[in-house]
Amino acid sequence: MATIKAGIPKGTRDFLPRQMKQRQYVMDVIRSVYEKHGFAPIETPAIENIETLMGKYGEEGDQLLFKILMRGAKAASGACDLGLRYDLTVPLSRFVAMHQNEIGRIFKRYQMQPVYRADRPGHGRFREFYQCDIDMIGAAAPLPEIALLQAVNDVFTALHFDAITIHINDRRILRAFIDVADIAQDDETTAITAIDKLDKIGREGVLKELADRGIAPQAAQKLLDIIEAKESNAQTLDELDALFVSHDEARQAVAELRVIVETAGHFQNPPHLRVSPELARGLNYYTGAIFEIQAEGLSSSIAGGGRYDHLIGMFSGKDIPAVGISLGFERICVIMEERGMFRDTDSGVDVVIAPFHRDALGKATELSAKIRETGLSCELYPGFDKLAKQFKYANERNARFVAVLGEDEMRANTVTVKNMNSGEQKNVSFEKIGDIFHQS
Amino acid sequence: MATIKAGIPKGTRDFLPRQMKQRQYVMDVIRSVYEKHGFAPIETPAIENIETLMGKYGEEGDQLLFKILMRGAKAASGACDLGLRYDLTVPLSRFVAMHQNEIGRIFKRYQMQPVYRADRPGHGRFREFYQCDIDMIGAAAPLPEIALLQAVNDVFTALHFDAITIHINDRRILRAFIDVADIAQDDETTAITAIDKLDKIGREGVLKELADRGIAPQAAQKLLDIIEAKESNAQTLDELDALFVSHDEARQAVAELRVIVETAGHFQNPPHLRVSPELARGLNYYTGAIFEIQAEGLSSSIAGGGRYDHLIGMFSGKDIPAVGISLGFERICVIMEERGMFRDTDSGVDVVIAPFHRDALGKATELSAKIRETGLSCELYPGFDKLAKQFKYANERNARFVAVLGEDEMRANTVTVKNMNSGEQKNVSFEKIGDIFHQS
Repeated sequence: MATIKAGIPKGTRDFLPRQMKQRQYVMDVIRSVYEKHGFAPIETPAIENIETLMGKYGEEGDQLLFKILMRGAKAASGACDLGLRYDLTVPLSRFVAMHQNEIGRIFKRYQMQPVYRADRPGHGRFREFYQCDIDMIGAAAPLPEIALLQAVNDVFTALHFDAITIHINDRRILRAFIDVADIAQDDETTAITAIDKLDKIGREGVLKELADRGIAPQAAQKLLDIIEAKESNAQTLDELDALFVSHDEARQAVAELRVIVETAGHFQNPPHLRVSPELARGLNYYTGAIFEIQAEGLSSSIAGGGRYDHLIGMFSGKDIPAVGISLGFERICVIMEERGMFRDTDSGVDVVIAPFHRDALGKATELSAKIRETGLSCELYPGFDKLAKQFKYANERNARFVAVLGEDEMRANTVTVKNMNSGEQKNVSFEKIGDIFHQS
Repeated sequence: MATIKAGIPKGTRDFLPRQMKQRQYVMDVIRSVYEKHGFAPIETPAIENIETLMGKYGEEGDQLLFKILMRGAKAASGACDLGLRYDLTVPLSRFVAMHQNEIGRIFKRYQMQPVYRADRPGHGRFREFYQCDIDMIGAAAPLPEIALLQAVNDVFTALHFDAITIHINDRRILRAFIDVADIAQDDETTAITAIDKLDKIGREGVLKELADRGIAPQAAQKLLDIIEAKESNAQTLDELDALFVSHDEARQAVAELRVIVETAGHFQNPPHLRVSPELARGLNYYTGAIFEIQAEGLSSSIAGGGRYDHLIGMFSGKDIPAVGISLGFERICVIMEERGMFRDTDSGVDVVIAPFHRDALGKATELSAKIRETGLSCELYPGFDKLAKQFKYANERNARFVAVLGEDEMRANTVTVKNMNSGEQKNVSFEKIGDIFHQS
């Protein structure tokens, strides 16, 4: 027999039952909280037309797309007509453009599906990973922003993340900075990319990066003086207000941030909310508020998002306001595992039935149904091996009970039930089997 | 603004909230029944190494694989190193070979993920579709077969499929037919493919197809005489037994079918089980029992599977017995929709809060949390539009209540709650808001 090497693609993972239980638990919590907040689920295909994906994630993003070869005779050309989705925001925008008449004017959706990036795999970085997004389509700032932050805050509360920090900024503020600091419009993206690294590489690091990219030292200094962290959100917002006297768009952004900050104080378990003027986020499509969420004791983010009022217009020809937050599902699972935040995620079975012979099979089958009706999980040992071997299996499966249907039991119409924790053994009539598991 | 045509790949679908609720309901039922039967979830990546997939599904299957272009400089060659998974059985076999030390000797898993086939899309045939598989690894027939059939039967009972028919056969019986009918070993696959169509194209059709493929008319006649439907399972099994006096493997298969048929009579809601000697199923990898399940009034199948004792060995170098059943998730959803079998799948919200002004936002936010605590879903209307517009939205969302926080209410620390079904309107104190929704 020709053996094929059993391997999986670089950067992808198999999930075993124990991990799956953890992942399903997190997804169930997210699903339940989002539905409580009036968000409804959608799904989109993993494969999208290549033109839907290209050019949405910057040049680097294009490089990281998985592209699918055309089928049939066209395969020989090496041409690709499809690609794997890179995030859930572009597919959502395409979805909204296509289904405008089926969804309401205001559309609140959540979506939990894997995305694909041909990134260099590394610690906690994968080529296939789940994203869990919520977005609100069709409404202007700042109420949708507040609704999203409240829902996400409730998710982290439900998952027992004690203290999250929400960093918030606005793309219009960043744009105004560039203007106020006398940096050329052409250098906007370069400058924003550099200042986004402030908390990672520090002031000197950012200054060097700005200099390397040809931005005048005075402009860079001025930019950082404006941006660097202030004592309180109120002080930051006041200074921004003062700074942007002649920038209407930026003043509007500051006013919206003010409402968001104030209202977040009324959340059930209020998060630390920090106006962070250096926050930029990589993606090109943001137009308004942007968010990044951190768990206590970790500098990397566990969620992020922002407003993208022009992206849907790229598909529909008509701008539709939109804002969304994506949870870093994989990172959340890693943190919860490391910090022991998962409840019991046993993937075993409650009761194993040990049949002794094929004559017991009908009875054993009926018994299994009776036991499942009581709410327990139950299975037959899949063979007629010696009892010792069947008990060994039950142990491996973490079974709480083993129900033996031997010759004596068959004759007397009884079952012998062994409690695997206490070792206690009882012989009960077939009819009363339901009681015993819930007494023990 | 450059507009991109908003489209999705041929044969793929977006799922809107209403469909998602239906699909989630079906998946939740399947998940819950399978876990009650002691099956645990796993997931595998959507992308597999190309050599894992090639050659497992016959020549036609290879043509239908979606192949992924290599990245970086290697892309220019047009070479593909990865492909999208085509089913869940081959990935499972690869998984078992890789994780032998992490899973037990006997491994019971379920898996619900989409698969990809570049098939010609048609009515109910898609290029991306979910499969829901259960498999038992590591145990010989027939107890695993019985466990799978009982679990699948319980799924259909839980979904309120009144009467399913399970067709069952065994590859060893088909092989013995070929021998008994004096058909050459080389023509085995050809002959099996032809007789599999018996219920679709009838006796004459099968005879013609066998003749076209160069099988002698006498042999073809003999084959069909043996196979054609018998009065009862008992009669069929007896005749098979008599026919295969000198075929030990086939006699063993008949004995196993006998146990399966007898035990299925003890299932809680016993299915129609029919020994169908013409049943062949397309895939190459089956070695023992094979199944196909039909819903009442439909000739196409809603589930299928079988034993594949050599597939894992292709990856591990060592044969491990395995058997599985795959539910036709998409077809099940279509049938349930057509037959009105879905419960209420409203994707709206219970309560819409209508804030009148940003001064009400803090209060409205607190109110929404209070309402969610009572178990209802709740959202703020995302703006300060006129009340009429907010009510219109609440109607579109199928809201049961609208809670108005107007100026009067803010001053008096009350909320006005309108029951959208009865039209009744009540003014209640902010503290007592929880009560009103569950009284109404």
